[in-house]
Amino acid sequence: LASSIKLYATSSYLSKLLMLDGHILAETDGPCTNHWLVGVDNCINGINDMVQRAKIKAGLDPDTPVCSLGMSLSGGEQKAAIQKLIDDMRERYPKLSQSYFITTDAIGAMATASDYGGIVVISGTGSNCKLVNPDGTQVGCGGWGHMMGDEGSAYWISHMAIKMVFDARDNLVTSPHDINYVKKAMEEYFQVSDLMGMLPHLYRIFQKSYFAGFCRKLAEGGSAGDALCQHVFTEAGKALARHIVAVLPKVHQDLFSGELGLPVLCVGSVWRSWELMKSGFTQVLSEAQAHGYSHFQKYSLLTLRQSSALGGAKMGAQNAGASLPLDYSANVNVFFSHTFNQ
Amino acid sequence: LASSIKLYATSSYLSKLLMLDGHILAETDGPCTNHWLVGVDNCINGINDMVQRAKIKAGLDPDTPVCSLGMSLSGGEQKAAIQKLIDDMRERYPKLSQSYFITTDAIGAMATASDYGGIVVISGTGSNCKLVNPDGTQVGCGGWGHMMGDEGSAYWISHMAIKMVFDARDNLVTSPHDINYVKKAMEEYFQVSDLMGMLPHLYRIFQKSYFAGFCRKLAEGGSAGDALCQHVFTEAGKALARHIVAVLPKVHQDLFSGELGLPVLCVGSVWRSWELMKSGFTQVLSEAQAHGYSHFQKYSLLTLRQSSALGGAKMGAQNAGASLPLDYSANVNVFFSHTFNQ
Repeated sequence: LASSIKLYATSSYLSKLLMLDGHILAETDGPCTNHWLVGVDNCINGINDMVQRAKIKAGLDPDTPVCSLGMSLSGGEQKAAIQKLIDDMRERYPKLSQSYFITTDAIGAMATASDYGGIVVISGTGSNCKLVNPDGTQVGCGGWGHMMGDEGSAYWISHMAIKMVFDARDNLVTSPHDINYVKKAMEEYFQVSDLMGMLPHLYRIFQKSYFAGFCRKLAEGGSAGDALCQHVFTEAGKALARHIVAVLPKVHQDLFSGELGLPVLCVGSVWRSWELMKSGFTQVLSEAQAHGYSHFQKYSLLTLRQSSALGGAKMGAQNAGASLPLDYSANVNVFFSHTFNQ
Repeated sequence: LASSIKLYATSSYLSKLLMLDGHILAETDGPCTNHWLVGVDNCINGINDMVQRAKIKAGLDPDTPVCSLGMSLSGGEQKAAIQKLIDDMRERYPKLSQSYFITTDAIGAMATASDYGGIVVISGTGSNCKLVNPDGTQVGCGGWGHMMGDEGSAYWISHMAIKMVFDARDNLVTSPHDINYVKKAMEEYFQVSDLMGMLPHLYRIFQKSYFAGFCRKLAEGGSAGDALCQHVFTEAGKALARHIVAVLPKVHQDLFSGELGLPVLCVGSVWRSWELMKSGFTQVLSEAQAHGYSHFQKYSLLTLRQSSALGGAKMGAQNAGASLPLDYSANVNVFFSHTFNQ
């Protein structure tokens, strides 16, 4: 039985692993498996642990390898690093799986939503954008992490808001709105009494995920009407839309012409604040459309109703010579559509 | 004899310690003593080592404490942390000194140049700006490190140039000039063949000082005529000038009225590229002057001809109830003056 099982995993800060054979047999959660963040050892151990727990949960023999382990991992970009991860898994855990496949969280998400392609825009702790054309070719924008990008992510939003408090204190840049809500929220969230107190959070004890978590407080402030919180989310909307504009020239003609127009798959927790980002996001796309993309008539924003692990499993199965059909319409939800005025 | 010796130290990435009693008796160098970067233990050990070597070099008994140890340390900002540093030094090295005084690199530099005040603008690996008024009051801008500021610093210049290469590759932002020189220089300096190769330098093996060192290559490119290199230095000039504009409203009237106009003390290696920064720097100050600072008629840029350790020693001596007169005119050099058109 187990040899026909397709197993797949996805990971960002919290990992989720599911096991399926046409339908989902078992689901397990685990710690972060981004090998850039936790190291190769923790990554491999975390994956093995999740798979073994899933086998047991599904009533399978944990000593029998599964047929295929298809994984969609944040940080699964660099070919050499991925191959090393697979080699290490094979060597250390021979009972894990017969074949291995690793793709990125973006591609796993896209494969969960469609086999035709589209644009994925991830905005969680970090951000990333990937165009997948109908012919399978990919074009990326962003995904370089907080030191070189992450525009429009929770980290970036938190940083922008906090930087405005620093700049206002320094008289270096005048804030477009009153900083008091953000300043108080920052002092509460980070448990500091002044800007000096922020230094450990920026350096010695810096944790990207914790820093990015401040974004939730800003979303609350924005929803409650604070103008500066609303401003940073509007800017995030613009930043995310700019990632789409960046890959627009490479979008295959056919991707524009479906019923939904250009499909944009939105992944990550920041998209929960869509209402706060909407004005900035739509503005940037409308400007780009007006400047020369006449075949770009409509776009739709989609979210996944299933874990992007599904797409990872599908691709893993394909890689192992099998097929794992997914019901795409059941996997996605359209939450916004816009048709440009002609 | 040693009890009448005033010892002083300064530190940024490379420390320098001098020993003087009216005139300089001995000079020693040491490793970085920024306790935020190297930790309290390394900082204290480094300082003790430099002082003891200086005593020996000056022919003094290393077991006899000096009268006063006045230090000007980068990272010497936070009162509680500084007090802990002093307490630890007293406890661990009782033969070091009778009294201790720690100020920042900015204030140490200012005290080396003048006892009347002025504006210090540091641009080395990081950046910082401090106004010291004739009455001794201080107003700061910046100095928050690379995660929250450092605008106009070598780190910031390097980052801006590299970010332009990433953004051009992503089609996210169009570079104002051809990126080829910067891209090649980056690949050579960091020994990478593509952008992916930069990720370890940004995260796993990130070292701010090494990253900032790329700025030298950009300065070479700018001097050789590369437009993008020239652009980032022009932007750095603007950024540094904005720090001055930020503290302008707090500048005491008297600081404008000396022969030099507003004295701006320029500290740090980035100022060696003044010619590349000049247009951006002067533009921002001229705009600020035109928008409401009619008493701001002239400014002069100064560099130190002596180590800013001198100012630290002077302040340490004052703190210990002694005085250590400095010949300010011998300590500074005016390298640029500008009088605004009325």
